[in-house]
Amino acid sequence: MKKKIITISREFGSGGRSLGLLVSEKLGIDFYDQKLIDKAVETTGFSREFIQEAGEYASSTSRLLFNMSLASAYSSVGTSSNYDKIYVAQNNIIRALAEEKPCVIVGRCADYILRDRTDCLNVFVCADKKYREKHVLENYGEEKGKSIEKRLEEKDRKRELYYKHYTGKNWGDARNYHLCVNTGEIGLDRAVEWIVERYLAED
Amino acid sequence: MKKKIITISREFGSGGRSLGLLVSEKLGIDFYDQKLIDKAVETTGFSREFIQEAGEYASSTSRLLFNMSLASAYSSVGTSSNYDKIYVAQNNIIRALAEEKPCVIVGRCADYILRDRTDCLNVFVCADKKYREKHVLENYGEEKGKSIEKRLEEKDRKRELYYKHYTGKNWGDARNYHLCVNTGEIGLDRAVEWIVERYLAED
Repeated sequence: MKKKIITISREFGSGGRSLGLLVSEKLGIDFYDQKLIDKAVETTGFSREFIQEAGEYASSTSRLLFNMSLASAYSSVGTSSNYDKIYVAQNNIIRALAEEKPCVIVGRCADYILRDRTDCLNVFVCADKKYREKHVLENYGEEKGKSIEKRLEEKDRKRELYYKHYTGKNWGDARNYHLCVNTGEIGLDRAVEWIVERYLAED
Repeated sequence: MKKKIITISREFGSGGRSLGLLVSEKLGIDFYDQKLIDKAVETTGFSREFIQEAGEYASSTSRLLFNMSLASAYSSVGTSSNYDKIYVAQNNIIRALAEEKPCVIVGRCADYILRDRTDCLNVFVCADKKYREKHVLENYGEEKGKSIEKRLEEKDRKRELYYKHYTGKNWGDARNYHLCVNTGEIGLDRAVEWIVERYLAED
């Protein structure tokens, strides 16, 4: 079936965001990453910085389960936590965007949120540690007081916990996606071509 | 780097075995699936049927942890279990085959066993339930007294537990492979072409 939406989940530093942007440019369709955050800021009234973090990452790897379970407990008696408010807002925004027009959506459990649609192409992007370290240092620079290894590990662990909490599934499990590419092995350009090809395929 | 070996891990009914065979034919290199079992029969003296099962599947989904832990416990005091004997034999066979000449190896944790080599292309193949049900019924027929859903579930659960036990990693986690394809979405022919292309790529 012809596709309308591309969702991209990605390891930190794998080039998944760049890949999504390149794909959207090649196809001439919208790209939602920062724009999705803008919409969530409008809807929830939370700060941009808070949504950027809380909308995709567990608050802290060690405190997550306590924080989020507590949030859910409150939520179930009517006091929705800030985490859940952002998840619900993003959920609604992503569903509306997908309904509206063709687009590429990066992160934020979009593959799971749009699971009932049959016109999504779900992609997971990963890469070996060396490739990701290089990519992060070139694109985001160094971070004072934190090693590059630690940054990769923390960011992915937070994405993994966030995904597990809100979807009940394992982040990065190939069975959640249609195509998973290791950009260190396949190369960004070839991965872009494959995704564009599958998006345009009629079968 | 130029590749020498292709390892294929696959969900039951995803067409992963057929895909491996097609790739080996296109590339004119050896294909190891049944031939690997023949070699294990020679080495261990166990029956073909026993190796076929115990060399890739947990003995039973419910009894696995008990059985395998017990096996490992015995193994640590010198009485190697039959499971471990087969694993060790297959490990040696797979390493020797990879050393010898270019080939495609299906299943049996080959991606993990050959993890220290830099000339492997590791592929995971999955597909949606409908595709797999059709593929299994067409290729292996019905099984008396067991529904097709149950067969898919049991077979994959046993592969998952076997992989976890011997590698400590999660079977199907995209980060263990270079490329993961959903054959129901991508199609077998296109998946073959992509794998052949990446195998031959010089970068």
